[in-house]
Amino acid sequence: MAVYTDISDEELEAFVAEYDIGTVVSCKGIAEGVENSNYLLHTDRGPYILTLYERRVEPEDLPFFLRLMEHLAENGIACPTPIHGRDGKVLRELCGRPAAIVTFLQGLWPRRIMPEHCTEVGAALARMHIAGESFPMRRPNNLSVAGWRKLYEHCADHADDVRVGLAREIAGELDVVESAWPTDLPKGVIHADLFPDNVFFKGGSLSGIIDFYFACTDFLAYDIAICLNAWCFERDNSFNVTKARLLLASYSRVRPIDDAELDALPLLARGSALRFLLTRLYDWLNQPEGALVTPKNPIEYLHRLRFHRQVGSPAAYGLD
Amino acid sequence: MAVYTDISDEELEAFVAEYDIGTVVSCKGIAEGVENSNYLLHTDRGPYILTLYERRVEPEDLPFFLRLMEHLAENGIACPTPIHGRDGKVLRELCGRPAAIVTFLQGLWPRRIMPEHCTEVGAALARMHIAGESFPMRRPNNLSVAGWRKLYEHCADHADDVRVGLAREIAGELDVVESAWPTDLPKGVIHADLFPDNVFFKGGSLSGIIDFYFACTDFLAYDIAICLNAWCFERDNSFNVTKARLLLASYSRVRPIDDAELDALPLLARGSALRFLLTRLYDWLNQPEGALVTPKNPIEYLHRLRFHRQVGSPAAYGLD
Repeated sequence: MAVYTDISDEELEAFVAEYDIGTVVSCKGIAEGVENSNYLLHTDRGPYILTLYERRVEPEDLPFFLRLMEHLAENGIACPTPIHGRDGKVLRELCGRPAAIVTFLQGLWPRRIMPEHCTEVGAALARMHIAGESFPMRRPNNLSVAGWRKLYEHCADHADDVRVGLAREIAGELDVVESAWPTDLPKGVIHADLFPDNVFFKGGSLSGIIDFYFACTDFLAYDIAICLNAWCFERDNSFNVTKARLLLASYSRVRPIDDAELDALPLLARGSALRFLLTRLYDWLNQPEGALVTPKNPIEYLHRLRFHRQVGSPAAYGLD
Repeated sequence: MAVYTDISDEELEAFVAEYDIGTVVSCKGIAEGVENSNYLLHTDRGPYILTLYERRVEPEDLPFFLRLMEHLAENGIACPTPIHGRDGKVLRELCGRPAAIVTFLQGLWPRRIMPEHCTEVGAALARMHIAGESFPMRRPNNLSVAGWRKLYEHCADHADDVRVGLAREIAGELDVVESAWPTDLPKGVIHADLFPDNVFFKGGSLSGIIDFYFACTDFLAYDIAICLNAWCFERDNSFNVTKARLLLASYSRVRPIDDAELDALPLLARGSALRFLLTRLYDWLNQPEGALVTPKNPIEYLHRLRFHRQVGSPAAYGLD
């Protein structure tokens, strides 16, 4: 949960007047998104989401994220669409922060993942990858393999406070993953954070994807690997191969996964587990004073990493 | 801000099916209310507020609060109205907690208090007091004078950690206020927590009052005294007599303030400042581990208390 900024009524009304969306009826900070402040804004025309970009999000990346959402929505992907102001702009300033208004998406994110959710997610991810093919902007993935060692170095001295032996285990993983990381898989726009709380469902069907603030240009199969970690493990950290099979099968019905991608999947999944282990470890060790967000336990991802490490072939993910 | 409970989609859909309000479209935890978890629930019929009663609120008090909101709404006060389920009930259980759905109120609460807000609040408070006359239920105010010494005793040993001399100053106040507290002023339903974040405005007019979870039966003039503290001090703790005059004048145009109430006002305001000083001090000294709420600074209310202590007559509040 995160609402870092209290917007005054005068500032809000002046801000909304820059758009042709009616007048403010109510505005409530919502417990969604960790990086930014999000508000459910009602005008007399309906609900919208107002986002204030607070931390971590680099202002120079915002045009990429906002244009991407618009591009994907134009290409049939259910995702928030930035609203253009009367001056044509989608990005302006509120309370000294970059701010945007996007469309409101219906649906609830699933708290308990059922196999059918994985089927829906696989297909939606593939559709998003295809829709992204025509997107002209590029953004490097600074949370991929090239960025992990730096994260590790920031955490190494204190990693063993979280679990004895953790620093050494991560160092060993880094060596393996860095040297084996693929270089020539199909690339494109990836979401890079497609966790259950970023996917809405309504009546059993996927109704939308949100939170494109980690989106970047990277291997499409790496996005699949992230989803394996995000959707196919149970709360006890066991791997649910049925969910993985459904996710991969439904993805590949929309966008076939080629052999090189398949072969790379165990390593990409291992790298993806390492990425979330490292960022969670960093957040765990660097909790700001008076933080309103409880950091997530990094060890969950150590278990996932170990699972992928022992995977001999992509068949372990339920593929035939 | 406070959202203490994550409601699963299945539980939510089953819960909402108990009501004739349509089907769930979305549900987002909102940063409102400190004691309870609040969600902005959209169904295909429109927005509602869902509240899970978490802490401090005694389950046996809930029928009083919910019936009061219903009674006030029936008597023309703009406030949330509990929705009755298909079985007629307004109170049921969700995620192991008492829960209710109430109507959604339009408006924004004012971040910067203007004199006109005080005019509106005075009149609304008086209208609420009159509408409460016919409410048959009673609830003692356990945060009035009889409850303060116990709160003080819980804080006394550590009060001076917050400010040197604070324990002694509070003890002296308690002695004065306890012995001088009135016994025979007009009583009725009071809101008891009518701070700016509980009052919504739309287009300059008051559009609703929320959060009746401190409401109780007490001196009506004590509610006025709370509003003097809540609405008529500036951020530098100076007293704005213009705002007080407007608040009191507009209150008394709707419900005349009698002489005994007027005479008691400085003492009631002093007691009300002591009440918020004590509860804030208690919260400050008893911050739960991993709390998602930053407690409010108690010292603000020490300054207000000192202001009322030096008030010689109600004329200091701008009355002619």
